[in-house]
Amino acid sequence: MAEYRVSDLTLEEKASLTSGEDFWRTTPVERAGVPSIMVTDGPHGLRKQAGESDNLGLSQSVPATCFPPAVALGSSMDPDLAERIGEALGEECRIEDVAVLLGPAVNIKRSPLCGRNFEYISEDPLVAGAMGTGLVRGVQSKGVGTSLKHFAANNQETDRMRVSADIDPRPLREIYLRGFERVVRDAQPWTVMCSYNRINGVYASEDPWLLTQVLRDEWAFRGLVMSDWGAVNDRVAGLPAGLDLEMPASGGRTDAQLVAAVRAGTLPESALDVAAQRVLDLVAKAQGRLGAAGPLDVEAHHALAREAAGRCVVLLRNDGGLLPLARETRVAVIGEFARTPRFQGGGSSHINPTRVDNALEEMRALAASGADGDAGETVSFAPGFTLDGTGDAATLRREAVEAARAAEVAVVFLGLPEAEESEGFDRTTIDLPAVQLELLDAVIEANPRTVAVLSNGGVVALPFRDRVPAIIEGWLLGQAGGGATADVLYGAVNPSGKLTETIPLRLEDTPSFGNFPGELGHVRYGEGVLVGYRWFDAKGLEVAFPFGHGLSYATFEYGPASVEVVGQQGAGDEGGAGDLLVTVPVRNTGTVAGREVVQAYTSLTGPSAVTRAPRELAGFASVELAAGETRNAAIRIRREDMAYWDIRVDRWVVEGGDYLIEIGSSSRDLRSRVTAAVPGDPIRPPLTGESSLADLLADPVVGPRARREVLPAVGGEDMERMMGSIPIGRLASFTRGGLEEALEDLLSEARAGR
Amino acid sequence: MAEYRVSDLTLEEKASLTSGEDFWRTTPVERAGVPSIMVTDGPHGLRKQAGESDNLGLSQSVPATCFPPAVALGSSMDPDLAERIGEALGEECRIEDVAVLLGPAVNIKRSPLCGRNFEYISEDPLVAGAMGTGLVRGVQSKGVGTSLKHFAANNQETDRMRVSADIDPRPLREIYLRGFERVVRDAQPWTVMCSYNRINGVYASEDPWLLTQVLRDEWAFRGLVMSDWGAVNDRVAGLPAGLDLEMPASGGRTDAQLVAAVRAGTLPESALDVAAQRVLDLVAKAQGRLGAAGPLDVEAHHALAREAAGRCVVLLRNDGGLLPLARETRVAVIGEFARTPRFQGGGSSHINPTRVDNALEEMRALAASGADGDAGETVSFAPGFTLDGTGDAATLRREAVEAARAAEVAVVFLGLPEAEESEGFDRTTIDLPAVQLELLDAVIEANPRTVAVLSNGGVVALPFRDRVPAIIEGWLLGQAGGGATADVLYGAVNPSGKLTETIPLRLEDTPSFGNFPGELGHVRYGEGVLVGYRWFDAKGLEVAFPFGHGLSYATFEYGPASVEVVGQQGAGDEGGAGDLLVTVPVRNTGTVAGREVVQAYTSLTGPSAVTRAPRELAGFASVELAAGETRNAAIRIRREDMAYWDIRVDRWVVEGGDYLIEIGSSSRDLRSRVTAAVPGDPIRPPLTGESSLADLLADPVVGPRARREVLPAVGGEDMERMMGSIPIGRLASFTRGGLEEALEDLLSEARAGR
Repeated sequence: MAEYRVSDLTLEEKASLTSGEDFWRTTPVERAGVPSIMVTDGPHGLRKQAGESDNLGLSQSVPATCFPPAVALGSSMDPDLAERIGEALGEECRIEDVAVLLGPAVNIKRSPLCGRNFEYISEDPLVAGAMGTGLVRGVQSKGVGTSLKHFAANNQETDRMRVSADIDPRPLREIYLRGFERVVRDAQPWTVMCSYNRINGVYASEDPWLLTQVLRDEWAFRGLVMSDWGAVNDRVAGLPAGLDLEMPASGGRTDAQLVAAVRAGTLPESALDVAAQRVLDLVAKAQGRLGAAGPLDVEAHHALAREAAGRCVVLLRNDGGLLPLARETRVAVIGEFARTPRFQGGGSSHINPTRVDNALEEMRALAASGADGDAGETVSFAPGFTLDGTGDAATLRREAVEAARAAEVAVVFLGLPEAEESEGFDRTTIDLPAVQLELLDAVIEANPRTVAVLSNGGVVALPFRDRVPAIIEGWLLGQAGGGATADVLYGAVNPSGKLTETIPLRLEDTPSFGNFPGELGHVRYGEGVLVGYRWFDAKGLEVAFPFGHGLSYATFEYGPASVEVVGQQGAGDEGGAGDLLVTVPVRNTGTVAGREVVQAYTSLTGPSAVTRAPRELAGFASVELAAGETRNAAIRIRREDMAYWDIRVDRWVVEGGDYLIEIGSSSRDLRSRVTAAVPGDPIRPPLTGESSLADLLADPVVGPRARREVLPAVGGEDMERMMGSIPIGRLASFTRGGLEEALEDLLSEARAGR
Repeated sequence: MAEYRVSDLTLEEKASLTSGEDFWRTTPVERAGVPSIMVTDGPHGLRKQAGESDNLGLSQSVPATCFPPAVALGSSMDPDLAERIGEALGEECRIEDVAVLLGPAVNIKRSPLCGRNFEYISEDPLVAGAMGTGLVRGVQSKGVGTSLKHFAANNQETDRMRVSADIDPRPLREIYLRGFERVVRDAQPWTVMCSYNRINGVYASEDPWLLTQVLRDEWAFRGLVMSDWGAVNDRVAGLPAGLDLEMPASGGRTDAQLVAAVRAGTLPESALDVAAQRVLDLVAKAQGRLGAAGPLDVEAHHALAREAAGRCVVLLRNDGGLLPLARETRVAVIGEFARTPRFQGGGSSHINPTRVDNALEEMRALAASGADGDAGETVSFAPGFTLDGTGDAATLRREAVEAARAAEVAVVFLGLPEAEESEGFDRTTIDLPAVQLELLDAVIEANPRTVAVLSNGGVVALPFRDRVPAIIEGWLLGQAGGGATADVLYGAVNPSGKLTETIPLRLEDTPSFGNFPGELGHVRYGEGVLVGYRWFDAKGLEVAFPFGHGLSYATFEYGPASVEVVGQQGAGDEGGAGDLLVTVPVRNTGTVAGREVVQAYTSLTGPSAVTRAPRELAGFASVELAAGETRNAAIRIRREDMAYWDIRVDRWVVEGGDYLIEIGSSSRDLRSRVTAAVPGDPIRPPLTGESSLADLLADPVVGPRARREVLPAVGGEDMERMMGSIPIGRLASFTRGGLEEALEDLLSEARAGR
């Protein structure tokens, strides 16, 4: 592996090195033999632009496999699958001589309206972190870097370049940073990409707290931080904050600013040295590992894309076992999406796929493969609507109704047209287009044996959910989604995906409603830690389909769970001391093999120092079961995943107590329960004059003495509730005096005893 | 009127003057002839302590009339009534030689759980401000001062001495400060009392922004600021911030701190001079006006208390006209509250009443007055439950059921026992005690003709609302509440109160749920401006009874509304230029005289720069109508009440556009609509490199040129949505360059054109 030293470079060279050469390359330093390396979009496939460059996915790029975007991949809840896809992505990068793939994106889905939700994994940080870890490991196992993005709190597109995400410390730590923390600690991505937005008023690209204190000092990140494309507001401020590499090129403008600042003494050259060395290290790492790679095995990667998509599909409903379809069943396929699939989102992640399956052809192929007759006879098609709104809706609907009436089962493909969701803007509604809903209503009336198949990057409302016996949520499944959908419809694949975001009944029910997308440069994360299912559970709100939900053609029975504390320090991602290992037997009581994603949710029984959701996902595991088979699902719950962020001591704290562990098939289909006694982290917030009487009485060292000596003077235990909130420094003014000395003495003792 | 000059005082005298002499008196300066004056609790009656002093309402005080506490008085929505009560309070103060009455409290009811909600007026700042103004005017018309409290954002009892109310600028201005602003501007209270809590991390008692910039510089407050009792955290910091008077006495401890700080040069003596002069001015004002006053006319004030209480009662439901009761109807009165009324709250506002009515006796008196026979024969009684939980619940319930069965109508008195709500702590549930709910269920079963009468300071859930044909919400009605309740039950008074807070279906539905009462010293007002009905309307949530609701024994029909812009500057509280005058004919279509509180709600049609509630109360007026009579209700909507707080320019801004004015009998019973075109306030936020392309294009001066010269270079109008959010200073990096100069030129032109 080559080694480059910053001491070999001039000031100007260091300045140019820490900014891009163009849209996709780092700047070479030919004099010192430092080559340029290429970075490129995006998380679920390679977007290596062939000609004109842009960061909005507008120009054409070289063909690459379009794997399921994050919205779908998340639903697999299968980090091993993510790792395999990561390996394939890494291979494609090597073939195209790309050093760093710009992903994964592990931002939390705060609102269903976020235009970029299709690029994000979940409303839950554990799922986002675990899946993101899989992707990073897979890509990096091929000697290709990743860029964990968009760091951080980039949860909307509206005003994204400037908006300040105003977030309190707990939600910031427990929800919005937690997934990033997991990926950094578990997988050490080569790079992290800072986001466009501000956090509590400070641009991510120039936030020393975020880029240095949290990312490096606390999480031990050892890689490089680059900017999102155009995220640099003030590079001279960003560099010492921890921004190593500006992307894309600034045409030398900011290089000159850096040089001038160093010369003026306002920017220490040592800060530039640190950043430049990180770029050199990245180049060296890329150089050292990039080797020759064979041609792309298009078929093999397409097959993986299909397999993956099959594990991502979420079967929301299957009343009366309408699915899977028998191959001889006369099926009316309705909806333009069956022929013209929606399989990825718009913007920087937009891939030029090597090929694209469509569900109609794949269904016909599957039907034909198992039937005697011609597939054209069993699978009819009517477009039902057009994607661009042209055509006569009534005629299209009438034709669809006729097809449905003539068939035994109608399969209606619905979804969001590409123009309705993309990077760059947020949605304003979660409704499907009216023309599609009207079509579905007409079809149901003509043939109640109707299956709805959904293609959408962001959550949509399902007002028909009680009237359609079978619903498949396919999200955006990538280039092989058509085949995977056909596989699921005909039972060639038994669906096993789970919702990693809640499907609400109404937009108004969602946690950020009223606080999304903010206004006048600010967005308040007013829902605090109650994001996603945490909110719906805390409020006791009905939902269309809950977090973690997803059916199978098999059925699973859960036995009694047991839990043990894992004593020793584990290795790497196996976790650490004090983790819990939950074991629960799961039996496939169905007639076909299937996979069940077993979920474990924790909650502290008894009082907590902080507001907590009724339950939080703390672990999950897949169990694959043949019909009739029983296996134990083993879920490791990391001790750190039971912690909250304590603002008094500014660190993670596990509260001691009994934790209820609820194990189930979804967040609202909890099948087994077990309790674990968890020892607390020692915590003793400092006592000062601003501490309350209650704080004083609660202190483990001086509390008992205060109860004896102070409490009687303020009215005794009868008055404890009323007087408890009075600060120690003001207690004297509520009494007849004489307490000052005793209180000062107690505070001294408390300080001394720390 | 005496005049005292601060220049006559020594440093030590000034320091002692600006702190209390004891619990209730200012410090005299005998050498300079400055007497002490007395201030005393509390808003709805005089709590002048006779012996031992405290600020928790524990010790006995001299007898005084207990008028309806704010929770009830607010429901009258009658500022004139508030003024009359204020006059009576002022008289009682004069009789007792009290210079300043410590009230009114106009804090917003943010959560139904706040233990002190009974002292607060409304969830809406207009109602709180208008009613508070009436009280201040009434008291001060008698030459007695008021203390507008608790300034500000003191919306909970939990950790109240220390908690930081973390509030964004818009909700702080539009919801939490707006009522204070109205009272200060309209009525100039002699004093303002700063609250215990912190606001965005700063103690109210030492917040120069709050106590000086907002209160004095913006609102033109001319009086004195005193601390809530024990609210001083650091007097040396508080004094220059605008805290004039520390209460109660600190035993000289903080006086010495002030003197030392002045001597050390860390506190300018001029700051102390300002505060001391304000105390001198207050003493002079009190001295100048306090004259002899005759003995308290107990009967007259009790009669006023009864009249007032009658206007406060809210008739929530009256199915089939079950009420009013005929005097000959055989009535079973059930519930200990009928005999032992709950009529005020606990804590500093706790009055020693001159006498106390109870509903049972008053009902018997009324029944007897109209009947031939003995009242004891028509009005029976069963306690049903005990207030302290003693006694055998089953036996008490059985006796009540028997009484109900034997009667034609059962009237069940339910409520919150005193121990369940008080100053000093918050509730954790909005449920009535289970024993009472069980009693009511049993009574309904025995006799469906049941009336529920409620006595509660904070909102309670009404799970029985569909099963009980008549429900009266009396809140806490003061010492004459028993009589007023009887008046309403028998129709001697036609109820006309309106809910000034929403009664929700569930605690979980309320806006602050999940963010109340905060934790670890902070409470985030995450619901922003969507407080009270604003939230329920924005979310489309069902409620038990909506804001503004209240029935009458009459019925009212609304005619078509009209609106005119009031051109000239009005005098005082009549409002200003650009106000709207809404007129709507209201007809009493019932058979008895009655009062209707007509409410006008506004909303901007079309897009707004900010998130707004679907409708906001902008004005209200009472109209008193004989049966069959029609009158016009005239409601003046102040222009300022259509404004939002703009954080870009840090001031109130009225957006131009068509405003829909909905006029009705409640926030969800809107009877008439009219639209007014309102001209906007000119606003032009500064354009900088951090302004977005969209900001640039929207600028009235340089926008058109930017549209011609810049937009084509970034992709034209097709790309406007995607590129609009990019900051001007970063636009160049998204294009092929060449824009920098044009942009810089546009910014210069924009700056020049300001």
